[in-house]
Amino acid sequence: MVVIMNADAPERQVEEVIGKLNGYGFDVHRSTGVRQTVLGAIGVKPDFDIRHIKVLEGVSDVYRVTTPYKFASRTWKKENTVIDVDGLSVGGDELIIMAGPCSIESEEQIEVSAAVVAATGAQVLRGGAYKPRSSPYAFQGLGVPGLKMIREAADRHGLKVITEVMEINQIEIVATYADILQIGARNMQNFSMLRELGKVDKPIFLKRGLSSTFEEWIMSAEYIIANGNPNVMFCERGIRTFETYTRNTLDLSAVPVIKQKSHLPIIVDPSHGVGIRDKVAPLARAGVAVGADGLMIEIHPDPPTAKSDGPQSLYFNQFREMMQELRMIAQIVGRTLPEPALVA
Amino acid sequence: MVVIMNADAPERQVEEVIGKLNGYGFDVHRSTGVRQTVLGAIGVKPDFDIRHIKVLEGVSDVYRVTTPYKFASRTWKKENTVIDVDGLSVGGDELIIMAGPCSIESEEQIEVSAAVVAATGAQVLRGGAYKPRSSPYAFQGLGVPGLKMIREAADRHGLKVITEVMEINQIEIVATYADILQIGARNMQNFSMLRELGKVDKPIFLKRGLSSTFEEWIMSAEYIIANGNPNVMFCERGIRTFETYTRNTLDLSAVPVIKQKSHLPIIVDPSHGVGIRDKVAPLARAGVAVGADGLMIEIHPDPPTAKSDGPQSLYFNQFREMMQELRMIAQIVGRTLPEPALVA
Amino acid sequence: MVVIMNADAPERQVEEVIGKLNGYGFDVHRSTGVRQTVLGAIGVKPDFDIRHIKVLEGVSDVYRVTTPYKFASRTWKKENTVIDVDGLSVGGDELIIMAGPCSIESEEQIEVSAAVVAATGAQVLRGGAYKPRSSPYAFQGLGVPGLKMIREAADRHGLKVITEVMEINQIEIVATYADILQIGARNMQNFSMLRELGKVDKPIFLKRGLSSTFEEWIMSAEYIIANGNPNVMFCERGIRTFETYTRNTLDLSAVPVIKQKSHLPIIVDPSHGVGIRDKVAPLARAGVAVGADGLMIEIHPDPPTAKSDGPQSLYFNQFREMMQELRMIAQIVGRTLPEPALVA
Amino acid sequence: MVVIMNADAPERQVEEVIGKLNGYGFDVHRSTGVRQTVLGAIGVKPDFDIRHIKVLEGVSDVYRVTTPYKFASRTWKKENTVIDVDGLSVGGDELIIMAGPCSIESEEQIEVSAAVVAATGAQVLRGGAYKPRSSPYAFQGLGVPGLKMIREAADRHGLKVITEVMEINQIEIVATYADILQIGARNMQNFSMLRELGKVDKPIFLKRGLSSTFEEWIMSAEYIIANGNPNVMFCERGIRTFETYTRNTLDLSAVPVIKQKSHLPIIVDPSHGVGIRDKVAPLARAGVAVGADGLMIEIHPDPPTAKSDGPQSLYFNQFREMMQELRMIAQIVGRTLPEPALVA
Repeated sequence: MVVIMNADAPERQVEEVIGKLNGYGFDVHRSTGVRQTVLGAIGVKPDFDIRHIKVLEGVSDVYRVTTPYKFASRTWKKENTVIDVDGLSVGGDELIIMAGPCSIESEEQIEVSAAVVAATGAQVLRGGAYKPRSSPYAFQGLGVPGLKMIREAADRHGLKVITEVMEINQIEIVATYADILQIGARNMQNFSMLRELGKVDKPIFLKRGLSSTFEEWIMSAEYIIANGNPNVMFCERGIRTFETYTRNTLDLSAVPVIKQKSHLPIIVDPSHGVGIRDKVAPLARAGVAVGADGLMIEIHPDPPTAKSDGPQSLYFNQFREMMQELRMIAQIVGRTLPEPALVA
Repeated sequence: MVVIMNADAPERQVEEVIGKLNGYGFDVHRSTGVRQTVLGAIGVKPDFDIRHIKVLEGVSDVYRVTTPYKFASRTWKKENTVIDVDGLSVGGDELIIMAGPCSIESEEQIEVSAAVVAATGAQVLRGGAYKPRSSPYAFQGLGVPGLKMIREAADRHGLKVITEVMEINQIEIVATYADILQIGARNMQNFSMLRELGKVDKPIFLKRGLSSTFEEWIMSAEYIIANGNPNVMFCERGIRTFETYTRNTLDLSAVPVIKQKSHLPIIVDPSHGVGIRDKVAPLARAGVAVGADGLMIEIHPDPPTAKSDGPQSLYFNQFREMMQELRMIAQIVGRTLPEPALVA
Repeated sequence: MVVIMNADAPERQVEEVIGKLNGYGFDVHRSTGVRQTVLGAIGVKPDFDIRHIKVLEGVSDVYRVTTPYKFASRTWKKENTVIDVDGLSVGGDELIIMAGPCSIESEEQIEVSAAVVAATGAQVLRGGAYKPRSSPYAFQGLGVPGLKMIREAADRHGLKVITEVMEINQIEIVATYADILQIGARNMQNFSMLRELGKVDKPIFLKRGLSSTFEEWIMSAEYIIANGNPNVMFCERGIRTFETYTRNTLDLSAVPVIKQKSHLPIIVDPSHGVGIRDKVAPLARAGVAVGADGLMIEIHPDPPTAKSDGPQSLYFNQFREMMQELRMIAQIVGRTLPEPALVA
Repeated sequence: MVVIMNADAPERQVEEVIGKLNGYGFDVHRSTGVRQTVLGAIGVKPDFDIRHIKVLEGVSDVYRVTTPYKFASRTWKKENTVIDVDGLSVGGDELIIMAGPCSIESEEQIEVSAAVVAATGAQVLRGGAYKPRSSPYAFQGLGVPGLKMIREAADRHGLKVITEVMEINQIEIVATYADILQIGARNMQNFSMLRELGKVDKPIFLKRGLSSTFEEWIMSAEYIIANGNPNVMFCERGIRTFETYTRNTLDLSAVPVIKQKSHLPIIVDPSHGVGIRDKVAPLARAGVAVGADGLMIEIHPDPPTAKSDGPQSLYFNQFREMMQELRMIAQIVGRTLPEPALVA
């Protein structure tokens, strides 16, 4: 922690601040400049609330000099973390595409979706069995029967499964059926749940909160890792800004920033990021070009009848075309994407 | 729902949109103007995703004309809801002050706090037993022993108790000890929990999410009411903006806006709203002046040693002085505040 | 400037950073802790771009420890600045109310407005002759004839005049007629104009930009003062956030924050801040309660026919009532407001 | 305009609203549904303030159904506008790269920059002679001598010139030397200047304001076009959000959104968008992948000594490498980029 004293702070105030810092257990290095005094407080207290010092008399500003996270940081681990998802590597050379419907609606719907996902060379099937809906009157998901449907469809087509967990009580059952557990944006700071996710032996897919800073996001990953589960991947899905025409504002700078600050993989979700079907493909291309480790894409056999998020879901043929473009851009940025199956 | 067609949309497109609307179960009224056609779609479907129509060819814009909430709206209930908290009325003429430490730390700490709260004329004792902390390494609260301490301290001084519930599994135990259940900003859209709160027979104190719109906030109240619990009060505690000097940006316009759109009470929390001790009192005064039904204030017997949020907690004497000012402003806006006890 | 090196930065990197700092003209104090090295760079370079150091190898973070402004800071001048507006003191004990129509529309309109303003005890008449309009097709103001009208109406009723300057070429003529020059939110960082305003001998009323931080706002005041004009008052008029129901989000924390960081007066404009007539009075009351030096209020003899901002303008009787409430709240926070004339 | 009445609005209120609408010159179509009445108000009044109707009794909501802009809209002109910049086409198949230093600092600096720009196949030389600086104490640009330097350097290398205009009084001189006039983010709503830019016969490069919505941005283009100059190109350069790690949040969804709503070209500026050198190339690649008509990039012969924005300027070799990648991505999205010269 660095404490900047006011230009005119009298010696008495400087000494009081030093005394307080010592009281909190810090060693203090003092630099007295021509204009002002700067105090360096040394000590490992990741959760110290720096406002305790900010409110003292004579203090101009206080800065934390250590990041509040450790295990999730690039300082802790230099090389990229490659997460093994039952044989599939996330965070390595291969670009990972997770696609499927917003909600699992029926056996047939998830089966035809899985067939298309596999045929294009994508590796992971997505689909929600528990849906966080802002209206209590909206479709809330099929629950366990939905989990069974997506597992079986994925298995038939050699895909991995990612699906969302909405509450602590669902973790166990979802972990039984899914390969990756998705945490929604509104649960990114559900600290009770983060703690429990640390005890699971499946990788966690952590969406960025609607108004979450990069640091808060990494701290949520730290929560999970500190509780025992090192396999966390980030997902940028758009933040809330003043602009209302797009559903959210997709922040693609998240990719190079997270890659600098953390060793964990990062996936981009352009479907929620922009929320309008005809803008998904351009932003998916941008997501690959910016260097993401993968993408999450919503598709549906018949978007106008989808029970949720139909308007941002791609038609199957749009998805197939997009995958061709993504494959070419992937190569330019040094990534591979499996070839599509001969019969799609 | 109102659908605005493009100025140059051909008749074929207009008819297709009308067909789709009928297919979704809406009656359609058509207005053909000189420049464009406007369609009014009538039908009660509170959870219909208007983007289904937005993506159709020839459509310029679509507006929902009914609010997505019902029971929480001023249209549903004209008169103000006054919530009975075991004999104390929230939302009536009396200004309600909820005060106490951020965290319950010890029997003595909560006892001296309760004594001061009661002596100033405030009515409710606050204090957290379960703490949502952004760091996994920070103090997480005393749990059930803390709940017992706050209940006993409140009872000794004739105060009501408000405390936070962080997860579904805590609802039952917290409802045993508290008079009002507080839901934190990060849980405002924890839909699974909102559903369970609908089944509780204690009033709910619903903090505004960090980046929640007024409508989303009211929708979260609707979730609780629709599931059976009509006693919800709102709490404005600041939103996230580009400004970082203050912890949040306290949005006092929330008070007149919520009072217009809903019949439920609204409380202002200046402590979290601004996050810096010496700015709490000015914003508390403003909260009363703008017409809030009450305030929530953090105080501590010795803020520098508080286990959480000390820097935004008032010293007891600051709180006493502030209460005098609030009492005078309350009168001007037609509110009462109980007189302080003779011996404080 | 304080430079925090990475925990694992080798000695070579630390020395290179020290070398660069010396090259830029800074004296460097080095603190070597157990975990990392912290460098204090001393030297008066208010416009140094700290990103020059941030991009160096081994650097974790860099903090500016001096504010980039000087003359506008509370450090430079401890006591409040009281601006003399031709005999009227802004920033002293007297609460200043500036009221009038958004646009000057006619001699009659401004005359009846002036009469009401004066009768309530308010001191300054507002009204725009040059209007910044987001549409090129909207009413753009009366120009010089409007300036004459507002001056004459104000003089007849013993009021001061405030009106907006939109471009450098208007400064001279506006300064001829007005007592205070208003700078709109969209011009807060029109640096060319700020420079010219430094050469004027009339006080400047500097509205906060739509997405301006407190620091940027104070820097704009610094621009004016550094160029020769020390008489600047701030005006909080709401910032842009994700919330769209209100026109802007009025940030009342600006008042205690600006009062801490600067010695200059600050006025609150609830009319633009909330943009809806029936919410102006509650927020005006809150503005006085929070400690503002004054308010700016839009009123109109017949709001529905106003050429601009009618929907946020108060009717005369609403304004009169509100002034009574404000007078009472002013007393509680230690301010005075002149008594209304006997015949209003 | 569409007016939604309250569900329980009595007939008297409906009739009063209709009367008011007629009074403002609108024809009214009435739809009476089971739950509420909807009024369609027809009439061409692009600048009508809909809040006039919003404040009437019984009105629930009001929506504008026509865009406030006309000439800038895709409805007005279906095909893309291709702007001829003295022989260079902006908005056509060719991807346009504008590169150069932030500030013109010396003849030598701009000459070596121009040589590199031309050698890579880029077409436009950028460089500021008038600099908008948030500090009055920072370097303000070379002025007219700078304009001469950039013109001569560009001519020697067959490049076009883009440079910024900060105030009305500079328009004439800048138009003498530059091929494209750049308007900075902070001037996007400098309405007086927009009006004057309508009278210039050079193309305008209109940066998005820090907190400008898409609609406000297009309205600013409309201002210029309505005043006589149809050659406007947009530039996305990042918006202000709660995230402070990056300088701004580059909103790449702006590209597909603007292309849908307007026929004008759009350029992406990743240098200001992210503000940190090592993140410029990834976002530049994303900008091409998302479909922008071009990019603006800051480069400098020696970034650490640059007089402004050095930390976000690329080294020449970084720029050359990036251009190779951009050329490949351009092909995938159907764009061309001139081949680099043999000797770079």
